[in-house]
Amino acid sequence: MKNSITELFQIEFPIIQGGMIWCSGWELASAVSNAGGLGLIGAGSMYPEVLKTHIQKCKLATDKPFGVNLPLLYPDIDKHLSTIIDEKVPVVFTSAGNPAKFTSYLKKHGIIVVHVTANLKFAQKAVDAGVDAIVAEGFEAGGHNGREETTTMSLIPMLRQKINIPLIAAGGIASGQAMAAALCLGADAVQIGSRFVATFESSAHQKFKDSIVQAGDGSTELTLKELTPVRLLKNEFYNKIQELYKKSASEEKLAALLGRGRAKKGMFEGDLNEGELEIGQVASQINELKSAVQVVNELMIDCKKTLSLQNTLFNY
Amino acid sequence: MKNSITELFQIEFPIIQGGMIWCSGWELASAVSNAGGLGLIGAGSMYPEVLKTHIQKCKLATDKPFGVNLPLLYPDIDKHLSTIIDEKVPVVFTSAGNPAKFTSYLKKHGIIVVHVTANLKFAQKAVDAGVDAIVAEGFEAGGHNGREETTTMSLIPMLRQKINIPLIAAGGIASGQAMAAALCLGADAVQIGSRFVATFESSAHQKFKDSIVQAGDGSTELTLKELTPVRLLKNEFYNKIQELYKKSASEEKLAALLGRGRAKKGMFEGDLNEGELEIGQVASQINELKSAVQVVNELMIDCKKTLSLQNTLFNY
Repeated sequence: MKNSITELFQIEFPIIQGGMIWCSGWELASAVSNAGGLGLIGAGSMYPEVLKTHIQKCKLATDKPFGVNLPLLYPDIDKHLSTIIDEKVPVVFTSAGNPAKFTSYLKKHGIIVVHVTANLKFAQKAVDAGVDAIVAEGFEAGGHNGREETTTMSLIPMLRQKINIPLIAAGGIASGQAMAAALCLGADAVQIGSRFVATFESSAHQKFKDSIVQAGDGSTELTLKELTPVRLLKNEFYNKIQELYKKSASEEKLAALLGRGRAKKGMFEGDLNEGELEIGQVASQINELKSAVQVVNELMIDCKKTLSLQNTLFNY
Repeated sequence: MKNSITELFQIEFPIIQGGMIWCSGWELASAVSNAGGLGLIGAGSMYPEVLKTHIQKCKLATDKPFGVNLPLLYPDIDKHLSTIIDEKVPVVFTSAGNPAKFTSYLKKHGIIVVHVTANLKFAQKAVDAGVDAIVAEGFEAGGHNGREETTTMSLIPMLRQKINIPLIAAGGIASGQAMAAALCLGADAVQIGSRFVATFESSAHQKFKDSIVQAGDGSTELTLKELTPVRLLKNEFYNKIQELYKKSASEEKLAALLGRGRAKKGMFEGDLNEGELEIGQVASQINELKSAVQVVNELMIDCKKTLSLQNTLFNY
């Protein structure tokens, strides 16, 4: 299959693995790239030297294109940028910040730049900044998310009406059926997070992976909207947030409860009670751990099957 | 096109118009049925004698199947039930209540029964109650909605894994592209509300219709979760809700602000400031008013085109 996204990244399949904190190091990124998708190293949870090591290991593990997800609010961002340029990383996905900031700088170094957004306003800003493609992330996605709460089903057609560059759908996609749906909505590719967290190659803690397999309908919620909205698995930490809400606690009290390091504690160290467990609504559809290559292959097979079947049914 | 839903209702296209308060009387329902879909009269905002009139007028306006949407919390429900049975309405969609309550009673009278749900638990209850099909309504849908906040993209594949009866997707669908997406996700048909509110035949006030055309990204929000969660267009009434939230107002104060009759005031009488304007996120994609038959025809044409195009691209 060839389209604007496979051509842009020089990859086989229009499947991008979300660059997630604590879950997507070189093992996952290289596995996805080797499987024909685009793997991303999540730089948001890495010290500069850690990112350097992951990029170097990723290059040893695959000769296919891969990328780095770079949250623009990262405190030591200059060091990350130097590493990315020195190591000749071909693709950067920027998120959580103003896309105007580093796009032209990265592009001058020959890097393909994609910006992640959850609304129309920032999608248009990203286009103006000259990005090569946009990831549009719906309300159902795990982790940090937009305040408009626009879902993938609403967001993709709305952006497709107004944005002419390649568009990647994220949020709510964990199967070939949902991938087919995203393409029908107007996306050129999908970015998938949660399904790749629940792979053997992800660096998520085994306990976190198991809790994803156990999750059901209503197991996640987008909360902490007063700080930065985040979708997480409901656990004891979540219950404490709810208690503060019941007492109408201030932003300061919420920030104090959140504290520092909860995402690492939960997702990387496996503290299911006190950790912050970022995951999407699709956790309810994930019933077993798989390898990254199996995820990619099944996505392609089921997407193709779904489009072919629906096309046939519709012409009955 | 033939599938489980077109066979069940004996209709031409798998398109169902949502039965909405104040917006879907006999004119809209009969127009949709005449166009080949299934029109529904929204009984929730009608006195018993008003419903009777609408059903009788609908039967005069179309000889095709149509239905009634019946919120199970309707206070005078026995009268509505008598009318529906006396007038031999062929299809009833029940919502907002326990599906076990009237399903067998309606089915004994030869009526096809469909239940509207926003989560897995009630979908399974509805199957156990013996309904003929389920509407699964995602978070992006307008009006009253579930507390789990599960989006259409997440809800449909999850239910499709566990529910074996015909499944109708609702929420976020206003185009043939989104209809194609819903079918790929596993739905057998779509139920569409907002797009039909913005038709010439809907009984929504002209000012409300115009405000839908004007709506953009982030124009709606699911709010009043302490009472019954409802997605509405942001306006002065919405701002007053937000002010109460800032003051950490009690449920009682929220209920007092909501008061009675706000939905009628907004949607039917056109008070855009003080009325409650229930509409879905897809309002941002609705750029002009159309006739119901044009909506149905474009849905079918674009759905078919989309499935065919994506199927071709995927086999390139």
